[in-house]
Amino acid sequence: MRDVAVLGIGQTRFGELWDRSFREIGIEAGFQALLDAKLSSGDLGALYLGCMASGSLIDQEQIAPLILDYAGLGAHHLPAIRAEGGDASGAIALHEGWLAVASGAHDFVVVGGAEKLTDVADTEANRILSGTADHEWEAVFGATLPALWALVAQRHAHDFGTKREELAAVAVRAHEMGSKNPLAHYRNRLTIEQVVGATPVAEPLGMLDCAPLSDGAAAIVLGPMERARKFTDTPIRIAASQVAGDTMALHHRRELVTVDSTVVAAKRAFAQANRSPADVAVAEVHDAFTISALVALEDLGFVAKGASGRAFAAGEFSGAGKVVVNTSGGLKAQGRPFGAVGVAQVVELVRQLRGEAGDRQVAGASLGLAHDLGGTGATSVVHLLERAN
Amino acid sequence: MRDVAVLGIGQTRFGELWDRSFREIGIEAGFQALLDAKLSSGDLGALYLGCMASGSLIDQEQIAPLILDYAGLGAHHLPAIRAEGGDASGAIALHEGWLAVASGAHDFVVVGGAEKLTDVADTEANRILSGTADHEWEAVFGATLPALWALVAQRHAHDFGTKREELAAVAVRAHEMGSKNPLAHYRNRLTIEQVVGATPVAEPLGMLDCAPLSDGAAAIVLGPMERARKFTDTPIRIAASQVAGDTMALHHRRELVTVDSTVVAAKRAFAQANRSPADVAVAEVHDAFTISALVALEDLGFVAKGASGRAFAAGEFSGAGKVVVNTSGGLKAQGRPFGAVGVAQVVELVRQLRGEAGDRQVAGASLGLAHDLGGTGATSVVHLLERAN
Repeated sequence: MRDVAVLGIGQTRFGELWDRSFREIGIEAGFQALLDAKLSSGDLGALYLGCMASGSLIDQEQIAPLILDYAGLGAHHLPAIRAEGGDASGAIALHEGWLAVASGAHDFVVVGGAEKLTDVADTEANRILSGTADHEWEAVFGATLPALWALVAQRHAHDFGTKREELAAVAVRAHEMGSKNPLAHYRNRLTIEQVVGATPVAEPLGMLDCAPLSDGAAAIVLGPMERARKFTDTPIRIAASQVAGDTMALHHRRELVTVDSTVVAAKRAFAQANRSPADVAVAEVHDAFTISALVALEDLGFVAKGASGRAFAAGEFSGAGKVVVNTSGGLKAQGRPFGAVGVAQVVELVRQLRGEAGDRQVAGASLGLAHDLGGTGATSVVHLLERAN
Repeated sequence: MRDVAVLGIGQTRFGELWDRSFREIGIEAGFQALLDAKLSSGDLGALYLGCMASGSLIDQEQIAPLILDYAGLGAHHLPAIRAEGGDASGAIALHEGWLAVASGAHDFVVVGGAEKLTDVADTEANRILSGTADHEWEAVFGATLPALWALVAQRHAHDFGTKREELAAVAVRAHEMGSKNPLAHYRNRLTIEQVVGATPVAEPLGMLDCAPLSDGAAAIVLGPMERARKFTDTPIRIAASQVAGDTMALHHRRELVTVDSTVVAAKRAFAQANRSPADVAVAEVHDAFTISALVALEDLGFVAKGASGRAFAAGEFSGAGKVVVNTSGGLKAQGRPFGAVGVAQVVELVRQLRGEAGDRQVAGASLGLAHDLGGTGATSVVHLLERAN
């Protein structure tokens, strides 16, 4: 298979976009990415779209051809394919788009991710999010995603002594970066005291440990690496793209504090790219809840199992250590439009690797990792992106 | 890209499977296909699953890793990816699975399709099905799928003089074949008079012009052609796999009586396989409504535009002409579990090409075509399968 490059990126603001429809935000991100790639729509071979729950949220299926249609590309009759893997849908769409270009099936494809969560009540959106858990063994008994991740947090504290304030440090850091990201849902800063003192959701997690329900879309244009220099001076190579599955229900896992699908996806990705965690300069990890980020940092190999809380609170992932995490603000502050998350993570990595991340720039970043997760980890996706110089 | 073969097939009964869950039927079809391929689960590289609306229907997302999990394969951490394109979801999953093997990313993959429609009321299932139309321009105003296809039927009658009885002939033929298919939802025979006299749904379509809401699952195992002889004496080669998109709303189309996405997907598929419609011995076409089948037969190139009604009523697609259509009973009689349909079509083609179709066998069939459609055609998928001798 041939090397694949990211040629263009696009992203809408994340947040409560009540005045805009799903199709509007999908198209905006897509056109931004096309413009950025200096491609016209006639160059495209296919569209891949990550979306978790458009059927439940906006009564709309077939949203991939819908976006194609309203982007004015209906007459091209491109293949338009939606991929779903819970809140990892965007990264799965990227994996499929990568495969389409790597295989030679298509030269240029757009990969989009979009979700419109605020057109329904929060309770309804949270009910729909529970669909990423095992309905028959978890959701039907009332186990919501915060409740399930709270079990993980309790066990992490029990096994490793992880402190409440260490969880809170993840949220504080996210909002600090969100304050520097003009597209972020939340741009306010937080203190440890605010996070710890927020309304409890599922102990030990409070309101400010949970990423918000957001609207938003992101898109990237992929093409073959050997033609990338025609379109950009800073092509970013997809060095690895790996998806791994796991059991749906938490109680079927080997243990609560490790998401094996993340461990496996990361191992496969580092093997594919012939790199190691120590080589990664910037990473976007799936912080749907503060505990999710801590577990992911361990499972990705950035820190030893159990040591993430202390390391995070000590600033090891904020520039003082090797890998700088969630410069976008992460799901916690940039926002959490389920299907858009995985694509937006890669958009932020591309900004970093191009050196276009403004106030959030990590100097000289040349290898980035994106980690997207479905529910409590039945799906994990890891991408490695590399500046090609 | 390398040649891909179908090594195994599996399918549950289609119908009202009230005593069985989504995960049970998904697993049954998958294991049948693995057994048929003489592979063990450890040989698999990935799972692709077509499903249209598990979120809306059974409150469950991430159904690809769910099936993997309940098949006992969770510990393998395979990539498990769901594809959605309305009622064309199964065929889209097959396209992505084909790409995964053709590209060399994986050697052996299972492609499944499953849907559980009878766990909700019929009115709710039909509301969900309306999500395959354009929500903002069609569904929100009450345009259901039967109503939209009725517009097509009216126009087809206006332009070409297509008769009510010619539409009915499609349903009569479907039930005739369904009566010979032990897995079919409907096994009773119908008469033209029964179809014409049935309760009207949206003129000219009546109850018996519409495919039922079914539960069911189907699965196939794919592998590289060069290794196929190790597993089967009758490997079936995927000669073409093409997806095409179109506008969501009917009123945005060039004309009502042609589904351009089908025209384009078929042209691309015949070019990919270097074959023509005249070479096809057996075809499974998407007869969600009787008019859908007639339009598809024209768009696929089997009969001139406008001539399908007369040709069908004259028996040209029932063995008296070149291509024999919907030996499975089609969606109309075999059943219509949305996401399973596109996979089940290919399962029937493989039976035919292997010479294992029993009472339904078309003697000497060596090339088959499967045509799957999302809604009124925003997605069309065409596969060509060939006996490799």
